[in-house]
Amino acid sequence: MDINMTERALDLLRAKRFQDLKGLFSALNPADVAQIFEELPNDNESLPILFRILPKEMAADVFIEMDNDNQELLIRAFNDKELKDVLDELFVDDTVDLIEEMPAGVVKRILRNTDPETRQIINQILKYPDDSAGSLMTTEYVRLQKEMTVDQAFARIRATGADKETIYTCYVTDERRLLLGVVTVRQLLLADRTEVLQDIMETNIISVDTFEDKEVVAQLMSKYDFSVVPVVDKEKRLVGIITFDDALDVMVAEATEDIAKMSAVTPTDKPYLKTGVLETWKTRIPWLLLLMISATFTGMIITRFESALAAYVILTAYIPMLMDTGGNSGSQASVTIIRSLSLGDVDFSDLPQIVFKEARVAVLCGGTLAVANFVKLLVLDKLSVAVAAVVCLTLMVTVLVAKIVGCTLPVLAKKAGFDPTVMASPFITTIVDAMSLIIYFSIATQILHL
Amino acid sequence: MDINMTERALDLLRAKRFQDLKGLFSALNPADVAQIFEELPNDNESLPILFRILPKEMAADVFIEMDNDNQELLIRAFNDKELKDVLDELFVDDTVDLIEEMPAGVVKRILRNTDPETRQIINQILKYPDDSAGSLMTTEYVRLQKEMTVDQAFARIRATGADKETIYTCYVTDERRLLLGVVTVRQLLLADRTEVLQDIMETNIISVDTFEDKEVVAQLMSKYDFSVVPVVDKEKRLVGIITFDDALDVMVAEATEDIAKMSAVTPTDKPYLKTGVLETWKTRIPWLLLLMISATFTGMIITRFESALAAYVILTAYIPMLMDTGGNSGSQASVTIIRSLSLGDVDFSDLPQIVFKEARVAVLCGGTLAVANFVKLLVLDKLSVAVAAVVCLTLMVTVLVAKIVGCTLPVLAKKAGFDPTVMASPFITTIVDAMSLIIYFSIATQILHL
Repeated sequence: MDINMTERALDLLRAKRFQDLKGLFSALNPADVAQIFEELPNDNESLPILFRILPKEMAADVFIEMDNDNQELLIRAFNDKELKDVLDELFVDDTVDLIEEMPAGVVKRILRNTDPETRQIINQILKYPDDSAGSLMTTEYVRLQKEMTVDQAFARIRATGADKETIYTCYVTDERRLLLGVVTVRQLLLADRTEVLQDIMETNIISVDTFEDKEVVAQLMSKYDFSVVPVVDKEKRLVGIITFDDALDVMVAEATEDIAKMSAVTPTDKPYLKTGVLETWKTRIPWLLLLMISATFTGMIITRFESALAAYVILTAYIPMLMDTGGNSGSQASVTIIRSLSLGDVDFSDLPQIVFKEARVAVLCGGTLAVANFVKLLVLDKLSVAVAAVVCLTLMVTVLVAKIVGCTLPVLAKKAGFDPTVMASPFITTIVDAMSLIIYFSIATQILHL
Repeated sequence: MDINMTERALDLLRAKRFQDLKGLFSALNPADVAQIFEELPNDNESLPILFRILPKEMAADVFIEMDNDNQELLIRAFNDKELKDVLDELFVDDTVDLIEEMPAGVVKRILRNTDPETRQIINQILKYPDDSAGSLMTTEYVRLQKEMTVDQAFARIRATGADKETIYTCYVTDERRLLLGVVTVRQLLLADRTEVLQDIMETNIISVDTFEDKEVVAQLMSKYDFSVVPVVDKEKRLVGIITFDDALDVMVAEATEDIAKMSAVTPTDKPYLKTGVLETWKTRIPWLLLLMISATFTGMIITRFESALAAYVILTAYIPMLMDTGGNSGSQASVTIIRSLSLGDVDFSDLPQIVFKEARVAVLCGGTLAVANFVKLLVLDKLSVAVAAVVCLTLMVTVLVAKIVGCTLPVLAKKAGFDPTVMASPFITTIVDAMSLIIYFSIATQILHL
């Protein structure tokens, strides 16, 4: 998005050329207008003025694209009529998202300005756990009856479609809202106008439960290439739908979360520059402390072999290389397995196959590294063959152990019900560090008769 | 997916109960049938037999969900008629994907069995770079003329819609295929039947260029919540469309790729268990070698301070803790920034703000760690205050340097046109390792008068 757009909007605002501003905004997509609004100076004044200039039909779409801080600022600037106008245009799932992010006072005003029926639905959805399909769904879908003809179905879609999040997939339910079938507008368009829905609807329906994990829902939609999936309660009654745009958001958020956890950071859902220093500190310090404590074990191992090191000080010089290579080998394996677990490519039953594969890869990697190192140690560092052999043997054994630990721990963590992502680089590195030192000193003791 | 489904299919196959098999498959989604097929024993025989049992209208959908090895196996087992039947049902983008993955001999057979018109389109698409919008698009969209009424538009959709990847978004073009407007079936359904398209179509169109990076396309679709986006050539003529399911696949693949690169693995697009040992070795060994070479610099630093270490052997014990904490602090910052860069949350112009924030976070983190450590070093390790001060001062400076290096390098890499993901944990760790040792020995020299 062009920064100059924001400048231009501000210039027009200062010149009070409101008609031109309206024209400028009309020509843009709501997401772009929202971005301009995000870039406004933080004066608490420009935003409400500019927002009021927006074409009416665009206002709610822009509102929902803005970040929480600006949404709150706007709601506080709105009078009740303005707030109600925006809320009336929002889909229920968006209103729920909004409520979940606003402080209690603002939530009360939102609920007071929502019509009673919607309020009841919102309160229902708010009861579902944060990461469940129920909290992600919207209730604005098209319901049809199985006795309807194609023409009648179109009439219903025309009459009720304007407020629905999608009209392209319609749901056939009975009077108790039991989900009987699914019919798409595509099927309706390609069918004969007099055909009856129960003859053309798909009855082999894939649906998700209200309490299903939203990440699972997103993966299911991705697997089946669904643009929308129905959400049913325990009695198989249709309660809502989840659309592909929400699934896409979940996928992106989950990947961000996994990446954070893999680098020992507690995930937050705020953008980087919107997170305060203290908040960022809080997401990082527990992991640093925990990893520091584990690293002291490595120190204890060195202390135990202090006399050996004093005799062969040269051995100290290779500690960082051995630890780093071990750590890198281990995290290569662990991160690959963590991602495969989260994509569903591997599971617990594949563990023997995974370990066997990693062991062979480790022998190849360790062998290559050892040979390269052996030459370097003899030619460049001019070490004795015995010391070079200690370093290279350690390298081979460390890589083997690192790869096996790296691929096993995430699988075991998942099996035990933990999040496998925490078994990524930082933890594997700490574990492998200690192991590589023990291997190093054991081999050194044997070969160099320390 | 239930493993037992595969067992049951095999049992029915052995018992030659083909009619029951057909019934079993009909009740499933193509993606599920494909998964059953993936789990078949590798005997090269069961798969072609089972595939031939599939209901005709399901065959192509199942085929496209299978992995490349099985697709190749099937194509080799097909006669020309069978191959043509499957190819006729595929969308052009799927055929292109298939061709890109098959060996040359198979590609020739595929092209020979494609009708000339499609073959021409395929050859056109194959010319676009692998990661471009052009290579991702399909050419099966609905074209309308601006003079058409809503009723005429519906007639055209009914007549041509069956073969199109989506019918819900239709494109209004002139005789030179110049993109004039977009109209959705939703708009058509809610409009008056006699209205003319040019009065209701959206003319403010967001489109992508054939050579646009497919990751950018996916982000754009996610930003605007588009289910489909038009692809135009340099002359703004409409050449294809990209649908949300492809965008979703790109997002997932890109996240997997980023995660791989962040842990020093060359990305592959094959699932873990389908990648050979030698292939996996190739994705990992260059990085291990490169990082090993950089780690030797760390060794050289230790060698330079060998005499100092001999005098204060206790200093050696804290090397792993300092290096690990530095590495972890640095990768926390770098990975957070890399992800923010790829989500578009930050860019080069934010660098001063990023560095200032990371510096403050570093002071908080380093301070916390130093205090915790100081107490531990005095109480548990019973060190002298001077040595404890050396360790804790090093910790504070190292965390500060690590965070600043960690947040700066990815931004600079991106600015210089490199992929910022390679500036993740492994590289940052290696750089920070060397720095932390230099800091350690410098502070030690000063305070302990080595």
